[in-house]
Amino acid sequence: MTTSVTVLGLGLMGSALAEALLEDGRTVTVWNRSRAKAEPLVAKGAVEAESAAAAISASPLVIVCLSVYANAEEILDGGAAAGRTIVQLTNGTPRQARALAGRAAGLGARYVDGGIMAVPPMIGRPEALILYSGDEEAFEEHRETLAVLGRPEFLGADPGLAPLFDLALLDAMYGLIAGFQHAFALVRSEKVAATDFEPMATAWLTAMMGMLPEQARAVEAGDFATSVSSVATSQVAFPGLIETSRDQGVDPGYLLPLRDLLDRAVEQGHGEDGLARLIPLLEHPAR
Amino acid sequence: MTTSVTVLGLGLMGSALAEALLEDGRTVTVWNRSRAKAEPLVAKGAVEAESAAAAISASPLVIVCLSVYANAEEILDGGAAAGRTIVQLTNGTPRQARALAGRAAGLGARYVDGGIMAVPPMIGRPEALILYSGDEEAFEEHRETLAVLGRPEFLGADPGLAPLFDLALLDAMYGLIAGFQHAFALVRSEKVAATDFEPMATAWLTAMMGMLPEQARAVEAGDFATSVSSVATSQVAFPGLIETSRDQGVDPGYLLPLRDLLDRAVEQGHGEDGLARLIPLLEHPAR
Repeated sequence: MTTSVTVLGLGLMGSALAEALLEDGRTVTVWNRSRAKAEPLVAKGAVEAESAAAAISASPLVIVCLSVYANAEEILDGGAAAGRTIVQLTNGTPRQARALAGRAAGLGARYVDGGIMAVPPMIGRPEALILYSGDEEAFEEHRETLAVLGRPEFLGADPGLAPLFDLALLDAMYGLIAGFQHAFALVRSEKVAATDFEPMATAWLTAMMGMLPEQARAVEAGDFATSVSSVATSQVAFPGLIETSRDQGVDPGYLLPLRDLLDRAVEQGHGEDGLARLIPLLEHPAR
Repeated sequence: MTTSVTVLGLGLMGSALAEALLEDGRTVTVWNRSRAKAEPLVAKGAVEAESAAAAISASPLVIVCLSVYANAEEILDGGAAAGRTIVQLTNGTPRQARALAGRAAGLGARYVDGGIMAVPPMIGRPEALILYSGDEEAFEEHRETLAVLGRPEFLGADPGLAPLFDLALLDAMYGLIAGFQHAFALVRSEKVAATDFEPMATAWLTAMMGMLPEQARAVEAGDFATSVSSVATSQVAFPGLIETSRDQGVDPGYLLPLRDLLDRAVEQGHGEDGLARLIPLLEHPAR
């Protein structure tokens, strides 16, 4: 078991990570560029390092959670990273994660990238899903410690996988949000309380989640036949959806890109296909 | 119990409705502008009327399910609607439903508007949710018969409510679709199969559905304080989401309206509020 852990970066998320480790009885070394943020953690038993390099030297496991990805590179370069396992939880892109993994390897460190699918108050609870990818041996060595932060899930050796899944899940979430917020605005335009409408919306969206496995299957099989709901059916419905939204005084903005996609699918002769046919179109954007 | 029902309009949905009623042992009179579509139903025991007016005369309960809303007005005007209950299931807007309800009242008919939250193969099963609004007495009188088509839910006396909820639920669904399709495209850009990613996406979105009751409460209370995830947090993340999407060759289109909304919210000083703060902005679109 890793008893000694360093946490670099003490924003809301970094502080939550350090706190969960302290509560689990680990020796936690912390560092933050502006030192005031370390104070509440020191009061709870954390050791504040004098510099990022000293913090990195202090523990075999170094968790990095900064506000800006570029700072991670700078901090690693300056530190005694050799022989350490760097677990990088700052939000970034697959490309950034791969570049930093290469840099860490050059410094003689083992590298794991991660994506935290939770907000700070969830840290330390099993509902906090944390995705990891990169050096599997290093991950397994520290799995038990990482499990203190949230439920860990290892995705594969490519360090870009965790940020990729992180971004994909966020994108899916923002679509969900755009949709139900628009629905709330629409019913409210007729003086129906969102709270009265919400249980029906939740039940309906839960039922509609059945589309995910079916569309995943369809796009992987390249088999877009449908007996349920075609591209053409949606395409015909869309002008009415947009018009009604405008009539009700509600911004129809988020429907417009999907309308264009449906139009493009029909133009290309895919009207009788199922909606999964839109996925390959997303992968080949119009000029 | 209503033993005799008329169905006007025999597209995929109208035919499914007529078939469910036939299977339940009702006397079903059908009519469709192009007569060929009546044949399969006549073979199953339906009676084909010579005209829409004759079909309306044939039954106390008249279900209308046409492809174009305007046709419903024309057909009712021409028929002997007096004393009948018209259940109008053609997709339309709240405004259209209210206008048609007024017209039906002028003809001495009782009017119920409805929204079918199901695809034709689901008709006749309890998973098929059908929303109704309008004349409650007429609805209750025919509730048992309407329950043959799917699970009925009465929303209120305003005939515009059923189409309003119908549209709002569709809008919510299209947001969900836009989001998960984009997520599938993103993971596929790195050769990860959508089928491998899907279980995690389903679990994640299911967890995220917890936002609906909280955001409904927030917008109705006008209380946008959050300890979880602020507008500013999302606004800061968005350029990266869009950039990564472009980097991966995936159309970021559906993210752009939400980015603009987040920018507007921050400009207006709502950065520290929760995401529910976007709902009132949707209700007051930018010029």
